[in-house]
Amino acid sequence: MQSRFFTLTDYPTGLPSRELFSLASKKLPDLGEGEVRIRNHWLSVDPYMRGRMTSMRSSYIAPFELGQPMEGGAIGEVIETNDSRLNVGDTVSHMGGWRDIAQISATGVTPLPDINVPEQAYLGILGMPGMTAWTGLNLIAEFKRGDNVLVSAASGAVGSLAVQLAKAKGCHVVGIAGAANKLAWLESLGVEPVSYRDRSAQELSDAIKLASPNGIDVYFENVGGACLEAALSQINEGARIAVCGMIDSYNAATPPPGPRNLSQLVVRKAKMQGFIVADHWSNYRQFLDEVAPQVAKGDLSYKETIQEGLESTPDAFLALFEGGNTGKMLVKLTD
Amino acid sequence: MQSRFFTLTDYPTGLPSRELFSLASKKLPDLGEGEVRIRNHWLSVDPYMRGRMTSMRSSYIAPFELGQPMEGGAIGEVIETNDSRLNVGDTVSHMGGWRDIAQISATGVTPLPDINVPEQAYLGILGMPGMTAWTGLNLIAEFKRGDNVLVSAASGAVGSLAVQLAKAKGCHVVGIAGAANKLAWLESLGVEPVSYRDRSAQELSDAIKLASPNGIDVYFENVGGACLEAALSQINEGARIAVCGMIDSYNAATPPPGPRNLSQLVVRKAKMQGFIVADHWSNYRQFLDEVAPQVAKGDLSYKETIQEGLESTPDAFLALFEGGNTGKMLVKLTD
Repeated sequence: MQSRFFTLTDYPTGLPSRELFSLASKKLPDLGEGEVRIRNHWLSVDPYMRGRMTSMRSSYIAPFELGQPMEGGAIGEVIETNDSRLNVGDTVSHMGGWRDIAQISATGVTPLPDINVPEQAYLGILGMPGMTAWTGLNLIAEFKRGDNVLVSAASGAVGSLAVQLAKAKGCHVVGIAGAANKLAWLESLGVEPVSYRDRSAQELSDAIKLASPNGIDVYFENVGGACLEAALSQINEGARIAVCGMIDSYNAATPPPGPRNLSQLVVRKAKMQGFIVADHWSNYRQFLDEVAPQVAKGDLSYKETIQEGLESTPDAFLALFEGGNTGKMLVKLTD
Repeated sequence: MQSRFFTLTDYPTGLPSRELFSLASKKLPDLGEGEVRIRNHWLSVDPYMRGRMTSMRSSYIAPFELGQPMEGGAIGEVIETNDSRLNVGDTVSHMGGWRDIAQISATGVTPLPDINVPEQAYLGILGMPGMTAWTGLNLIAEFKRGDNVLVSAASGAVGSLAVQLAKAKGCHVVGIAGAANKLAWLESLGVEPVSYRDRSAQELSDAIKLASPNGIDVYFENVGGACLEAALSQINEGARIAVCGMIDSYNAATPPPGPRNLSQLVVRKAKMQGFIVADHWSNYRQFLDEVAPQVAKGDLSYKETIQEGLESTPDAFLALFEGGNTGKMLVKLTD
């Protein structure tokens, strides 16, 4: 059986060019001990993957190996197994993405829970992005009822759950996004929408103030750049900033300078803390128990931006950096 | 009786010019109910005072009022009292500085503890600056034995206690300073001295790495600018950055941009937290019990840079922004 997969041919500087992603194919060997073969239905592309496209090992995740199959979240169906925990026909989540057929160790393969949601939800609102939103608010920012909460990239896979969890907690919530349809979606969720388009940090700060006259107690940061500078100008005493990511600088060949007003951290006695969701995965069951029933009932909204076919995976990934997604960006595979 | 005092004639933009500080004199009225009259021996000048020289009220301290006596830490002797807690002849610490004779409410006047140290130590190592170092390390950065600790402005009033508390805890300590005599003092304290002079952020980062090959777990931040960018490049996973101040930008008419590598907070899952020592003053007794005996025994070293005479107070203050002090900057008053 053949597996088709993407590899990186070189590490990019700046925004990766499409040509660096190469589609390859190989005949799969016989299944090894403890291995499983999966036909993927859905592939995930996520901004954090840009951090693996570098020769420099960061502290928490290894770079993609050039010429090898790339990796990422995926949902698929077991078609052959050498592990007794898994059965042919099981729908599973795993990290053997960026390919159609994955043959991997069963260690990191998890059957989906029996909850009445579409399977691809486990790549979005019930998967890593959803868990990231929950972790940032609960464990890093320690949000509480009545907080004034600001979320950047608020219509993205992470941000869109963050704003809804904050609304559900009884917070006043402001969401930053760009396109009109994203702002409209946020408004429909009870969020005060603020556009970053054509606005300086100062103008964005003024817009945030208008949307949250009592300042900002919690900032869920996905973007950096002007969003961070604008947010810092509006934080209240004791504010907590959970830094999930700074997509603004992921593709910068030379990273742009940081905010001019970092000393607001002192004046406002504020905390700014980065986190990686993998460190908090022991809380995944708690997250699922809390969030999954609300998703099943339709009380929590989520959107998907879907590209079709394995070939479209690099384009889906690159579109993340151009605001090309509302909610979760997914690649759907069909036979 | 006359009181001579400094007032601000206008709020400065950028580095305050000497002409904005005006020496005035007035005849003191009779002592009111609950008031006390103090002959000051020592006046404190501190970087945070720049934050009061603005028309914009920050969250935690009121601006100096134009034309009124300025305020600041001072040590003096009670010469008249309408408060039964205080006696003529008591040596006290209080906030009626920037003047020779203070006539103020006794509420904020504290007799010095009976410890065998020079009285001006209560403006430095046993006062607000010392308490700031202790608070940042203990309550904000939660430093522990074996941490690799970096301190900027390490030969200043705050930094020089911070490095010694960290050494005493069994930490590996790196101190950033400029002048050769400051670096030599740090070295004599068992601290790895690193000069920021004529170094880019990248060069400073390389120098820190050389001085602390195992990275940085705790950064005590007094400066901002290139120091912060250099430190962020060297932090370890789970690093804690206690932000005491950012003197680098206090006098900037337009604040300089922040560090280019703030996303290190995410990669290293690090925390950066601002604090104001006044919020933690309930711990002052604990600080004193811990630190004062070591100062009395000579186990903790401190230096003073002393200017003489009330007239020199503005110059002493302005010298803080030019590296003009080693240890605590003080003004000594003589009759």
